[in-house]
Amino acid sequence: MNITGENIIGAEKSSGNQETVTVMDPKSQQMLPEQFHVASSDEIELAVQKAQRAFAEFSRLSGSRRAEFPRAIAEEILRLDVALIERAMKESGLPEARFKGERGRTVGQLRMFADLLEEGSWVEATIDCALLERTPIPRADIRKMLVSTGPVVVFPASNFPLAFSTAGGDTASALAAGCPVIVKAHESHLGTNELVSKAIQTAAEKTKMPDGVFSSLTGNGYELGSMLVKHPLIKSVAFTGSHRGGLALHKLAQERDEPIPVFAEMGSINPVLLLPSAVETNHKLAQIILGSVTMGVGQFCTNPGLLVAIKSPALGHLKEALQEEFAKAGSFTMLNEGIHKNYESLKKETLAHNSIRPEAVVEHDDTEWSGKPAVVSVDAGDFIGNADLHREVFGPFTMVVECADAHELASVVCSLEGQLTGTVYGEEMDFNEYSAAINELEHKVGRIMFNQMPTGVEVCAAMQHGGPYPATTDSRFTSVGTGAIRRFVRPQTFQNWPQSRLPKALQDGNPLQIWRWIDSNWTKR
Amino acid sequence: MNITGENIIGAEKSSGNQETVTVMDPKSQQMLPEQFHVASSDEIELAVQKAQRAFAEFSRLSGSRRAEFPRAIAEEILRLDVALIERAMKESGLPEARFKGERGRTVGQLRMFADLLEEGSWVEATIDCALLERTPIPRADIRKMLVSTGPVVVFPASNFPLAFSTAGGDTASALAAGCPVIVKAHESHLGTNELVSKAIQTAAEKTKMPDGVFSSLTGNGYELGSMLVKHPLIKSVAFTGSHRGGLALHKLAQERDEPIPVFAEMGSINPVLLLPSAVETNHKLAQIILGSVTMGVGQFCTNPGLLVAIKSPALGHLKEALQEEFAKAGSFTMLNEGIHKNYESLKKETLAHNSIRPEAVVEHDDTEWSGKPAVVSVDAGDFIGNADLHREVFGPFTMVVECADAHELASVVCSLEGQLTGTVYGEEMDFNEYSAAINELEHKVGRIMFNQMPTGVEVCAAMQHGGPYPATTDSRFTSVGTGAIRRFVRPQTFQNWPQSRLPKALQDGNPLQIWRWIDSNWTKR
Repeated sequence: MNITGENIIGAEKSSGNQETVTVMDPKSQQMLPEQFHVASSDEIELAVQKAQRAFAEFSRLSGSRRAEFPRAIAEEILRLDVALIERAMKESGLPEARFKGERGRTVGQLRMFADLLEEGSWVEATIDCALLERTPIPRADIRKMLVSTGPVVVFPASNFPLAFSTAGGDTASALAAGCPVIVKAHESHLGTNELVSKAIQTAAEKTKMPDGVFSSLTGNGYELGSMLVKHPLIKSVAFTGSHRGGLALHKLAQERDEPIPVFAEMGSINPVLLLPSAVETNHKLAQIILGSVTMGVGQFCTNPGLLVAIKSPALGHLKEALQEEFAKAGSFTMLNEGIHKNYESLKKETLAHNSIRPEAVVEHDDTEWSGKPAVVSVDAGDFIGNADLHREVFGPFTMVVECADAHELASVVCSLEGQLTGTVYGEEMDFNEYSAAINELEHKVGRIMFNQMPTGVEVCAAMQHGGPYPATTDSRFTSVGTGAIRRFVRPQTFQNWPQSRLPKALQDGNPLQIWRWIDSNWTKR
Repeated sequence: MNITGENIIGAEKSSGNQETVTVMDPKSQQMLPEQFHVASSDEIELAVQKAQRAFAEFSRLSGSRRAEFPRAIAEEILRLDVALIERAMKESGLPEARFKGERGRTVGQLRMFADLLEEGSWVEATIDCALLERTPIPRADIRKMLVSTGPVVVFPASNFPLAFSTAGGDTASALAAGCPVIVKAHESHLGTNELVSKAIQTAAEKTKMPDGVFSSLTGNGYELGSMLVKHPLIKSVAFTGSHRGGLALHKLAQERDEPIPVFAEMGSINPVLLLPSAVETNHKLAQIILGSVTMGVGQFCTNPGLLVAIKSPALGHLKEALQEEFAKAGSFTMLNEGIHKNYESLKKETLAHNSIRPEAVVEHDDTEWSGKPAVVSVDAGDFIGNADLHREVFGPFTMVVECADAHELASVVCSLEGQLTGTVYGEEMDFNEYSAAINELEHKVGRIMFNQMPTGVEVCAAMQHGGPYPATTDSRFTSVGTGAIRRFVRPQTFQNWPQSRLPKALQDGNPLQIWRWIDSNWTKR
C-alpha cells in the first residue's frame, strides 16, 4: 500500500492543504521521502462534524453489530502484513520481533473488545422493578445501563506505534464504547499511522459503519491538538505521553465552557522495593533488573526507574553485579530525537547532583540517538529531600536508593508521588517487618506486584493501568484492559420506560442473556 | 441537645476562634440566637491532618466493620428525635411532614450503604488467574478491586438539610467508600448541621472509628471552602448547589498542583415533552404539573422547569387549566433570603422578555420570602434563539414552550444543554412520530422517564442522579443511589500478590462470598 500523506476524514481521503511535514528515520537520522499533508481548519471541522453525526447511529448499534468493526480492523491490520512491520521499524528504530509482538497485542486488544461487546454484560445493566404496593409511596420501575458519551480525541503514544497508537487501546476502547474517534497522528510515525488509519477506514466501509466513525489528522505543532480539545462537540480526550503534554491538555479541557475529561497517562518511576531477603538470596536480580530497565530501550511507561533497598554487604554485591550487567549491555536507537535529547539531558542533570553516585554510566556518543543503559545510586536522605531526583528519566535508566533501615524505607515511599506501579521483591515473611512501606506503596500506585518486574502490562479484565496523580490525570480509570471502556460511557436511567422502547440490555426476559444486577445479585434470568 | 456553635474536628469539639456567625429563621426573618464559631485556619488544618491520618486505618477496615459506622449514624440521628425535626423546620421554613420524610430518607441511605458494605460485591473484584503454560509468555496472577481514594470534602445542599447535607448521600457514600469526610457546614442550617455532626461524632466514638474520620467546619464566605479544596491532602469534592458555585470549585480544583475531581450537581431545567396524546387525553395533567412544580416550594433539582408541547386547541385548554391551578396554589416560605431574591429576580428577568407570555404570575409581596408558583409560555422559535430563557429559575416556576410540529419539538430538545432528567408524557405509539426528539432527549439527560414527573428521586441501585454538563461536572457518576460510592474509589490491581496478604475480596476460596468477575462471568465460587 502506498503512503500518500492524506488525512483520513471518515470515508474520505483528504489532502486539501499544501503544507506538509515529514518523518525522520531515527537509525539513519535521514528524512523519509513521504510528505504528509497538515490538516486545515476546514478539514478538522469536517472530521468533528462527521464524528458528531456518526455518534447518533454508532452509539445505538447493538453490541454484536458494533463488534464487527474492531474485528474487521484487526483483519485489515493483519492484511497490511510486512508493509506495516517494515514501516513501523523504519519510523521507530525498534526491531522486527518487537513489532510482531506489538501487532499481536494490537489485534488481540481489538478482538478482546469485540468479544466484550458480543458478550454484552459490560453495560452493567441494573434493574429495580416497580414496587407498586410500597408505602407511603410506590416505587417506579427503574433501570440503568452504561451509554456512550460522544466523540473522543486520541493522542497516541510514541513508544507503542501500534498497540498504543492509531488502532491501540484508546481507540479500541472508545469505539467499543460507541464513541467515534479522531486520532491526532503521532508526528514520529505518520506513515505507520496512515497505514493503520486506512485499514480502519476500509474496515468501517466493509462493516457499513456510519461515515465519520473514525478520522485521523496530521498536525504541525500544538494547533491541531488544541483545536480538537477545545471543540465543543468533543466529549473526552485520551492521551499517552509526557507530564507536560498531558497537563497542558487537561488544563485546556478544563478551561472550555464545558469542561471534559482528559485521560492522560503521563509517566511514572515505578518504584521497586528490594527487601533484604531478595537482595541476599536472588542471584539473578541484577539480570532481572537489567532486562526490565532496558526492555524497549527503557521506553516503557512501567520502566522500573527506582530501586529502593536497605544498605548491607549484600546490596554492595548487587550494585557490583548491576555495574557488570549494565556495562555489558548494548545500546539501541531511541524512538526520536526529542526522546533521545531528553534522556541525555535528564541523565546529565541527575548526575550533576553531588549526592548521586554513578554506578554504571557510559559516556554518550553524540552521533547516534542511542540510549545507553545507566544505573546510579543515592542515599535515602538525599533522595527524599530532592524533588529533582523523583523525576522520570525516560529511557534505560534506574536509580538505587539506599536506606538505613525499614523506617527509612517507608519514608522513601512516603516521599513519592503517585505511580502507575509499585513492586515488592522479597519473601512473604517480609510483609510484617516492612508493612509500613508496603501499605504506603499500595496507596501510591495503580498496580502492585510481588517478585515480578512491572514491564509487560497484561491486557485483561483485572488489569489497572493507571494510578494516582501525576502518573495519570484520573486514577479512577485504566487505559489497558477491558476496564478502559468505562472512560467513555456514563450511566443512564430509564424510569417507567415502555418495554418495547428499552434497550435490549434492560428488557424483561433478558433477550441478550447478559449478567444484570437485580435485587443485590448478578443474574442472567 | 444544646446547640453550642462548636466545630467538630474528629473526636474533638472546638471553638478556638472568637469570630461567629448566626442563622436566620426564614419564616420570621429573625436571627436565631445561637452563635456558631468560624473555623480558624489552624482548626481547618487539624481537620485535614486528622482525616489523612484516619484514612490509612479507615480505608482498610473490612466491609462489615466499616458498615457499623453508617448504621450507628442512622441510630444517633433517630435518637435526636423532635429536636432535629424542629431545628430543621426553623432553619428552612419547610414543614414537619417533609422532615419526617427526609429523615427517613437520610437514615435509609445510611443503612443502604451499610447493607452494601456487608454484602461486599460493590468492590467489583475481578480475577484473572495465572496461565503459566501460555506461550510465548505466561500470564501472571492478576486481581483487581476498588479501593478508597482519600479524604473528601462535602459541600451540602441548602434544599435537603438532612438528606443532602451533613449526613446525606455524599457523606454516606464517601464514608462507605472508606474515605474520611470533612463537611463544610451549610450556612443556612448551621444548627441542624451541628446536631447531625454531633450524632456522627457519637457514632464514630461508639463504633471506635479512627479519630478524624469525620469533621464538620463552619465558615464565613468562600475562605473555608477554598482552603479545603486547595489542600493537597484532599482527594475529592462533592458539591450540590448553584452552577456558579460548582464551577468555581471545579476551576479551583483543576488549578491545584494535583487536580482532583469535583462532583458538582449544579441544577437543571428538566424538560418534559408533553406529546399531543397526553395533552388531549390526560385530564389531570395540570394538577400533576402543579404538584411537581411546587413540591418543596419548587426547590428541587429535578423540578420540571420546561414543558415542551405542540400547539393545538388541547394545549390551549391545558394552559387554561394551568392558569386555574397555579392561581389557586398557595405560596410557601423559601429556604433563605438568597434563594428567594434569586427566584424573584430571575422570574422578573424572564418576564421582561418580549416573547414571554405570563400565564399565571402573581405579583410578589416583598415582606415575605415566599415563592409564588408561576407559569409562563413562549413560542419555540423565541425559546431556541434565546439562551437566557434556558436558565434554571430555581423555585416553583415552569415554562411552556409551544412548537409548530414534531420537527420544531426536536429542535427545542436539540437546543438544550445537559440535564439531570428528561420526561416524555404521551402514549407508546408516539415514540415513532417523535423519535427524533426522544432520541435527542436521551443524549441530553442522566435519567429519562415516561409518564412520571421527575421530582421524587428514588434511592436505589438503578438510580442515576447526574447528567451531562452543565447539570453536573461529571456525567459518569451519580450522587444518589448505591452507585454514588464509585465517585470515591479507584481500581487497584494486585499482581502475583501473596494469598495471605491479598484483601479478602480477592482471596482464593472467596471467604466473603461476594460476586466476582472471573472468566467473563460473575460468580460466587
